[in-house]
Amino acid sequence: MKVLITGFDPFGGDSVNPAYEAVKQLPNEVAGAQIIKLEIPTVFRESARILEAAMKEHAPDIVICVGQAGGRSAVSFERVAINLAEARIPDNQGNQPIGTKVEENGETAYFTSLPIKAMMKNVQAHNLPAYISYTAGTFVCNDIMYRLLYMIDKEFVGIKGGFVHVPFVPEQVINRPIGTPSMSLQHITESLIYAIEAAVRTEVDSEVNAGTTH
Amino acid sequence: MKVLITGFDPFGGDSVNPAYEAVKQLPNEVAGAQIIKLEIPTVFRESARILEAAMKEHAPDIVICVGQAGGRSAVSFERVAINLAEARIPDNQGNQPIGTKVEENGETAYFTSLPIKAMMKNVQAHNLPAYISYTAGTFVCNDIMYRLLYMIDKEFVGIKGGFVHVPFVPEQVINRPIGTPSMSLQHITESLIYAIEAAVRTEVDSEVNAGTTH
Amino acid sequence: MKVLITGFDPFGGDSVNPAYEAVKQLPNEVAGAQIIKLEIPTVFRESARILEAAMKEHAPDIVICVGQAGGRSAVSFERVAINLAEARIPDNQGNQPIGTKVEENGETAYFTSLPIKAMMKNVQAHNLPAYISYTAGTFVCNDIMYRLLYMIDKEFVGIKGGFVHVPFVPEQVINRPIGTPSMSLQHITESLIYAIEAAVRTEVDSEVNAGTTH
Amino acid sequence: MKVLITGFDPFGGDSVNPAYEAVKQLPNEVAGAQIIKLEIPTVFRESARILEAAMKEHAPDIVICVGQAGGRSAVSFERVAINLAEARIPDNQGNQPIGTKVEENGETAYFTSLPIKAMMKNVQAHNLPAYISYTAGTFVCNDIMYRLLYMIDKEFVGIKGGFVHVPFVPEQVINRPIGTPSMSLQHITESLIYAIEAAVRTEVDSEVNAGTTH
Repeated sequence: MKVLITGFDPFGGDSVNPAYEAVKQLPNEVAGAQIIKLEIPTVFRESARILEAAMKEHAPDIVICVGQAGGRSAVSFERVAINLAEARIPDNQGNQPIGTKVEENGETAYFTSLPIKAMMKNVQAHNLPAYISYTAGTFVCNDIMYRLLYMIDKEFVGIKGGFVHVPFVPEQVINRPIGTPSMSLQHITESLIYAIEAAVRTEVDSEVNAGTTH
Repeated sequence: MKVLITGFDPFGGDSVNPAYEAVKQLPNEVAGAQIIKLEIPTVFRESARILEAAMKEHAPDIVICVGQAGGRSAVSFERVAINLAEARIPDNQGNQPIGTKVEENGETAYFTSLPIKAMMKNVQAHNLPAYISYTAGTFVCNDIMYRLLYMIDKEFVGIKGGFVHVPFVPEQVINRPIGTPSMSLQHITESLIYAIEAAVRTEVDSEVNAGTTH
Repeated sequence: MKVLITGFDPFGGDSVNPAYEAVKQLPNEVAGAQIIKLEIPTVFRESARILEAAMKEHAPDIVICVGQAGGRSAVSFERVAINLAEARIPDNQGNQPIGTKVEENGETAYFTSLPIKAMMKNVQAHNLPAYISYTAGTFVCNDIMYRLLYMIDKEFVGIKGGFVHVPFVPEQVINRPIGTPSMSLQHITESLIYAIEAAVRTEVDSEVNAGTTH
Repeated sequence: MKVLITGFDPFGGDSVNPAYEAVKQLPNEVAGAQIIKLEIPTVFRESARILEAAMKEHAPDIVICVGQAGGRSAVSFERVAINLAEARIPDNQGNQPIGTKVEENGETAYFTSLPIKAMMKNVQAHNLPAYISYTAGTFVCNDIMYRLLYMIDKEFVGIKGGFVHVPFVPEQVINRPIGTPSMSLQHITESLIYAIEAAVRTEVDSEVNAGTTH
């Protein structure tokens, strides 16, 4: 089984993005599945083009995109992506869509096809906080999640896909307002590992139940 | 040089207290100074009696008491302790003082004698957030800080003393409201090490300047 | 022109719900439109049945449902409702759906058809904070918003509908954690008036542009 | 009986300061006591000089200074002022003390002599949130509170004095981060009235008990 996992590059004035920093730290195998890591740019649409090429190249069973949600206190699993782009700041190529659709002919929203409750519970079972979120925002994180689920719907049917938000790492909050939460890179990385582990096991179980192998 | 560092035991329904958990992890020597670790009970007055005995036994140059401040996002260094006990919940022996003085004949407040700006800056210089706080609350944390500074004023003149608040560790926020910050035990421990390092160096420098040795 | 506006009754241990308290205070006419006020129960599905009957009876041009979002700091306008019910607490009839669809054959989500940017800006232009939210949660607020937009899609084509979340009123936060935001009932009510005003004007403009009258 | 109440002028880029805005709205009499209102500049030391002159002129029984604590959610009554000035931003005359004492020969801290628990409870009894705070910060608010209590200690013995922090008003949070709490000017003003009422009644009671009249 193959898991393709992406992380965004830094944006908005920060010199690191904990998303790809954590992805980089992942082992090459989790729960028997091969982990393929990919850095993608914090750019509307372009990030999805790179993702699509990687999906074609690697034919993953599971795709997890990871992004930073500054101000959140724990790793959070997104339930839904919406067909809307509203950028408060420009992306890394200067795009700043206001009130536009992500995909003209897409659904209003797509639910993740990842087993996010099982993923959250496995993180919590290892003594780390985690929760489910019902908004991935309207910036590049929602954009890549929406486009991933759109591509799965149209082109890569059966792949399990979704999005995970990670907090700031401690160094990012030194000069932010007192009270801004953060999480250590090690704990973010571990949370991703436990989440992947649960996703892989759920997928293995479902394939066993379906009488398929892969 | 000797540093005596204390941490409270668990209270208020939590099964761990990151304060003593972090103190336990400290090395036995930091910046050339011997580290003496002491667990104290989350009990008004009684914790100070145990501290006083340890101060007599070990004759430390520096005393740092550590306690948990659930909800804070980083290690914070307390500037001041006040002569007031107001307990919202009972301590671990059922004491719940309301609006009483800590010491009948004490000052209204004592400032820490630790070099807390240098301690904060040394933590930040190692890529961890830290800040100075101007209230240690009115529970057992303020009580031990006040009594420590009172004892230094009356009995242990010249010792440098103060209080450090540490956040929840991640496992403590799994079942708390989403958004509650935490910090890894490793980062809390490292923050304490960098803080001790700065306190020891400042003390060494001041002794050199004063032409004394110890 | 007619505006039907609903507010939920109290739930979750609170003795008031600022949603209907504010709706009750509305004048009977705003910007030339008739305001029809309706209290609905904090009950999954049942609240929508009552709303549907009122929509049939009154044939409104605009429907705005209002609910409480405890912990938010200002009136917020919801962009999207999702086809998911996840109740952390039971509703007022003891229903507690976990991971179920709101409507078996509904879309994954519906966007509001209210002009929420114009509504937000009109509130802000009157010196009150307001913002757009991208999640109405997964409790009864999302349920009524989803069902309203579903009904508009299937049965009441052309009606403008959506959902507005309002903060706690001050009396509700006296015994909540320090720092919990609230807003005065008068300011909540005024925010609703300015929001309705913008919605009515937008609707009038669009009808004028379309060459229709009503 | 006379109550002298002060409010700071705007600072830090805001065009209003809810402190004096609320003070201005106060009636000229509360609970039988005369209310004397005074705007003071957001300037270290200078504000206290103006206060001292007004105390000499009016011979008040009670002095309450009011300032803004942006980000707090309710009116809060300060318990203690400390002998420390640490300014993160310059005051309105460009002064920015870092780590200096407020008064060279003053105590480390002074407790308020106002009956702040009774004041808080009277606000809450009128359905408004209120709480007691244990830090007035280290900017001009702490400075005026410290100097007031210092002057009472040295020069105006027997006067009851203290400090009250008030939240932002709604218009101030329109362009601040979503989630920043505010309180309506009317509720801030009412909170001050109920607080004064309790302070005056406590003072009247204590004078009756002491067999004095005034």
